[in-house]
Amino acid sequence: MSNLSLLILPGDGIGQEVMVEVRKIIGWYGENRDLKFDVSEDLIGGAAYDAHGTPLSDETMAKAQAVDAVLLGAVGGPKYDDLDFSVKPERGLLRIRKEMDLFANLRPAQCFDALADFSSLKKDIVSGLDIMIVRELTSGSYFGEPRGIFVENGERVGINTQRYTESEIDRVARAAFELARRRSNKVCSMEKANVMESGILWREVVTAVHKADYADVELSHMYADNGAMQLVRAPKQFDVILTDNLFGDILSDCAAMLTGSLGMLPSASLGSPMENGRPKALYEPVHGSAPDIMGQGKANPCACILSFAMALRYSFDQGTEAKRLESAVEKVLADGVRTGDLMQASDGTPATTSEMGDAVIAAL
Amino acid sequence: MSNLSLLILPGDGIGQEVMVEVRKIIGWYGENRDLKFDVSEDLIGGAAYDAHGTPLSDETMAKAQAVDAVLLGAVGGPKYDDLDFSVKPERGLLRIRKEMDLFANLRPAQCFDALADFSSLKKDIVSGLDIMIVRELTSGSYFGEPRGIFVENGERVGINTQRYTESEIDRVARAAFELARRRSNKVCSMEKANVMESGILWREVVTAVHKADYADVELSHMYADNGAMQLVRAPKQFDVILTDNLFGDILSDCAAMLTGSLGMLPSASLGSPMENGRPKALYEPVHGSAPDIMGQGKANPCACILSFAMALRYSFDQGTEAKRLESAVEKVLADGVRTGDLMQASDGTPATTSEMGDAVIAAL
Ligand SMILES: CC(C)[C@H](C(=O)O)[C@@H](O)C(=O)O
Ligand SMILES: CC(C)[C@H](C(=O)O)[C@@H](O)C(=O)O
Repeated sequence: MSNLSLLILPGDGIGQEVMVEVRKIIGWYGENRDLKFDVSEDLIGGAAYDAHGTPLSDETMAKAQAVDAVLLGAVGGPKYDDLDFSVKPERGLLRIRKEMDLFANLRPAQCFDALADFSSLKKDIVSGLDIMIVRELTSGSYFGEPRGIFVENGERVGINTQRYTESEIDRVARAAFELARRRSNKVCSMEKANVMESGILWREVVTAVHKADYADVELSHMYADNGAMQLVRAPKQFDVILTDNLFGDILSDCAAMLTGSLGMLPSASLGSPMENGRPKALYEPVHGSAPDIMGQGKANPCACILSFAMALRYSFDQGTEAKRLESAVEKVLADGVRTGDLMQASDGTPATTSEMGDAVIAAL
Repeated sequence: MSNLSLLILPGDGIGQEVMVEVRKIIGWYGENRDLKFDVSEDLIGGAAYDAHGTPLSDETMAKAQAVDAVLLGAVGGPKYDDLDFSVKPERGLLRIRKEMDLFANLRPAQCFDALADFSSLKKDIVSGLDIMIVRELTSGSYFGEPRGIFVENGERVGINTQRYTESEIDRVARAAFELARRRSNKVCSMEKANVMESGILWREVVTAVHKADYADVELSHMYADNGAMQLVRAPKQFDVILTDNLFGDILSDCAAMLTGSLGMLPSASLGSPMENGRPKALYEPVHGSAPDIMGQGKANPCACILSFAMALRYSFDQGTEAKRLESAVEKVLADGVRTGDLMQASDGTPATTSEMGDAVIAAL
């Protein structure tokens, strides 16, 4: 196989530290499997702003467009809180999502057996939980025009626009149905069709795609507020949840927290196939830059390592190797190796970021 | 005191049944306290559509504008699922909120001691929980223009507009700060200022109101996605949560479900003071019309009874009587009287809707 190209964007805060561990994993695959990666690294977020005055330079953007897959750490930090909206670290992330047209954001909310006790929910409600949220990532209220702060009738008004075209809904719905077929074959689509016309169109298009090409998949619809309730009440009723950009932001964080271990959750953002047949793709942990613990060796690298596992599966067609890496992480957890976020203060000394990474390598 | 006027709109499904119990409570106050109510009743939602072809007639709307307070049951049901958007039961509710200008929606998420076991969350996470969500109710994505489904470049596009003026944010922020002063003096405001300009303006105005007139209240800001996470992780960190219409819809349902007993949760929607000094006001349970159990005497009337308690407090300045009613409900729970939603199948025969109402009367 020709070399696979990867662009690593560690970003800010613990993004830097967890990426060091992912590099070890990438190295292991190069040495022990026929998987050679050409790895380049660049800046995004606050780190890019510090260097270039922009949270994502055109050069970095061009590199991202050219590689097989992008691995991102995290962006943001209190240092950048007072920056103008247009150059905030988040704008770098939103730009890369938009320009790579990564419309399908896959966020698994999976409860690891060894960690079920960490959930704030009762164990029987969450143990074995395995939901896949498919969030539309390139449209909706995040990008719709008009937007901004304007003056009207002598006062300011803040405006954003929720906006979805049929084809935008169609393609992300297909992504959800395809995924469901490889899982438990159920999709629940969430919107506010009782209040918003954009929700009505969403429901109509999802229903039409289902009828035309995915009638074998079980489809249900739920209002997003009820969706939030049901996630808290009985999350195991769900397999794949399909929703828009803004609802997906909130519902996926809610679902993530059910598992009790944010430091374990990866994500994939996928676009259309490139010339080589691979989808445009960016992989990143669900957790943020966690400035409070940065630089102390406390960060849990698992979410980022598992994001690389998703890259193996979705970008490089290495489902078996992805599974191997996921099993290695599970084994490490079962063996009781834990970073601080996965233990109580009374449980003794936590593993460092690098010890956790080494343990995964050992388990491979 | 001159008679107090109340318009009762039972609406659909279990709305009808729970309102029968509230009427008993109203009767009790008329007989046992110096609180005489002039009660009228009318239609809203599907019931109004069946009678008049509209989910809220102009006549009913005019009555609602004229009374001291409106008590609403619930709207909606599968029977109305295929109605056109413009005459769906929900439109009646949205119209009354908008035309009465009920901008501050108060949703307590309170965990009753006797019911803490019903939460899907661990008992120590939720016992004693007492959050007040203040949701803006007359603007934002629910009402912003332009809205609709249009054709552009040969395909349909669904559009809604998130739109907040400074004065809309200002007045609901004041409502939240005022409430906080009578509680634990903390407000957490939630938006997506990292992504949406409407969120930036929201944060700015809330900060300015705080600085100008409520510096004694502790104010924090949180992104709404993190808010959903924190509600699941450690809900007791919150006192008053201030948020917009759409985020409030989702976050308040999430918070409600934490308590484990949706059948217990009331709400108040308040507007500006009328000539008599009372705020425009509508009170309704958080639960919906529950068509699956309607007409079977299974509905829990407590949420609606507690909504009337909120009316006593916020419309009629009867804080002591409100407390008396709330204590009566708590006593009934502590005594083990339970409708089906508050017990396990193995716990024996549940109380009927009317037995529950009678028990509250007895406890008064
Ligand atoms: C950092 C922020 C811009 C981002 C979002 O709102 O999408 C984050 O919350 C996420 O969910 O990936
Ligand atoms: C019934 C519906 C229109 C309503 C809303 O979305 O506001 C409900 O969910 C609520 O929260 O009161």
